[in-house]
Amino acid sequence: MPGEFDLIDWIRQTQRSSPLLHLGIGDDLAALKWPAEELLLVGVDQVVDGVHFDSSLHSPRQIGRKAMNRNLSDCAAMGCLPAAAVAAVALPGDFSLDRAKELCQGLRQAGDAFDCPLIGGDTASWDGKLVLSVTILGRSAGGKIVTRAGAHPGDGIFVTGPLGGSILGRHLTFEPRIQLGRELAAVATSMIDLSDGLSRDLAHVCRAGGVGAIVDKAAVPIHSDAVELSRRDGVSPLQHALNDGEDYELLFTSAGKVPHEIRIGQITAEPGIFIRGEDGIPRPLAPLGWQHEIGH
Amino acid sequence: MPGEFDLIDWIRQTQRSSPLLHLGIGDDLAALKWPAEELLLVGVDQVVDGVHFDSSLHSPRQIGRKAMNRNLSDCAAMGCLPAAAVAAVALPGDFSLDRAKELCQGLRQAGDAFDCPLIGGDTASWDGKLVLSVTILGRSAGGKIVTRAGAHPGDGIFVTGPLGGSILGRHLTFEPRIQLGRELAAVATSMIDLSDGLSRDLAHVCRAGGVGAIVDKAAVPIHSDAVELSRRDGVSPLQHALNDGEDYELLFTSAGKVPHEIRIGQITAEPGIFIRGEDGIPRPLAPLGWQHEIGH
Repeated sequence: MPGEFDLIDWIRQTQRSSPLLHLGIGDDLAALKWPAEELLLVGVDQVVDGVHFDSSLHSPRQIGRKAMNRNLSDCAAMGCLPAAAVAAVALPGDFSLDRAKELCQGLRQAGDAFDCPLIGGDTASWDGKLVLSVTILGRSAGGKIVTRAGAHPGDGIFVTGPLGGSILGRHLTFEPRIQLGRELAAVATSMIDLSDGLSRDLAHVCRAGGVGAIVDKAAVPIHSDAVELSRRDGVSPLQHALNDGEDYELLFTSAGKVPHEIRIGQITAEPGIFIRGEDGIPRPLAPLGWQHEIGH
Repeated sequence: MPGEFDLIDWIRQTQRSSPLLHLGIGDDLAALKWPAEELLLVGVDQVVDGVHFDSSLHSPRQIGRKAMNRNLSDCAAMGCLPAAAVAAVALPGDFSLDRAKELCQGLRQAGDAFDCPLIGGDTASWDGKLVLSVTILGRSAGGKIVTRAGAHPGDGIFVTGPLGGSILGRHLTFEPRIQLGRELAAVATSMIDLSDGLSRDLAHVCRAGGVGAIVDKAAVPIHSDAVELSRRDGVSPLQHALNDGEDYELLFTSAGKVPHEIRIGQITAEPGIFIRGEDGIPRPLAPLGWQHEIGH
């Protein structure tokens, strides 16, 4: 079944150029030359009931926070500073005004933590479930921005924290790595936030850079949530760390040493993504992370 | 039952200021001082299945066009030039890749007509119906931008075309008044696009400006669609012209003469919106246009 990446590919391939456009569809954010000496970054990210949250379990405030934080995480992944956001919300018919306000408070609290005010929005009510989309504006503010492309053979592959099992709660409570992203931008050759899962997000980076990768199995940092989840579902903690989405740590590549971050492997000239265990033999690492399927 | 405007009011009243912010929530678009000598305008507007379109009747291309054109119409209402757009779409599980591409083509065709490229987006698939939200960036580009506030007592009230009955088809096929909005910005004291219906949109303008209005019944331009719809539903063509939404003509106020536009009334110092018939007696004009209700 085709997925969202087939759609994104098609969109990218058929994209028209524009004098204002610095970076188009397909990265964490798009970038405009606006003003000429700066970059204006823009991106949109939505959460929908039953996929990214469950409105019967999660409070409107949690949902609002998550929607904003996902966008802030995209800013982190570009190494830019968030500047402002707008939100569109489709409210179920029985969603009260108080709950709508709570949703807005969640958006704002998350934005305010990074000086990113909510400056506009649109509300509709309908007979469907809750959909909340946030558009974020970022600015390069004198710094370098880092795309998904740019990884070179020999670069180390790094992540900024332990992975897996975010569904146990971290997918709602994560902290976007804005400051860290800004710092890493100085040394990173490519960067992405881990939203779709390490195996899939690394595939995005390799594809964008026209390179391959070897991941060291023993180096992949496993979150205690991945261990806990493994106890419940029998899937190994490593598989959770490789394939669960919504960690919202940063995955980046760098030619230098990056002392405080976790090196999990190396970029190769040969295409293909492999994982190497104790026997030293690289085995293919399939991108099993999250992708929205699009029906026929 | 509270409506979206109660929510918007609350959001506006509780909005924090930001050094970058020129104009916050509550107008057609928000505006940022970015760069200092220019304004960057930003807004979001969504369409949802069963409210703004009917996916069993309307093609993905029509839906895409409408979503983009609603946003372009907001640019027209501010007198700014569209610069770029991003879109978020929540696709039903059985929505094919080809239909998703068609939706994207609709967005693009509408944007391309006004040099407004689609530069980013987000797709999700879920078990709900189609939701499409578009965020637009605009720029003042050396021109004056026009807000909803700014109408003065004595100003004439104008509209740019005949109104009513858009549900018969114009809500999908309208042309955003970008060039006209840009020209009118030079003479308008306030401006809004007619999306919620004349009676309600005029109420927005009066409230934002702290003024009232008297509309001349005989001057309200009635679209032939309003006459046709009246034949079917028995509601008068005038009521359709006053209260139907989605005309996407511009409503503006001006102190001067505006030869090519239709003068429908006058701004008053006293609050309240009235309509004056042949007997010369002003009667209250209730804002009956569209508002999304928000449940308790």
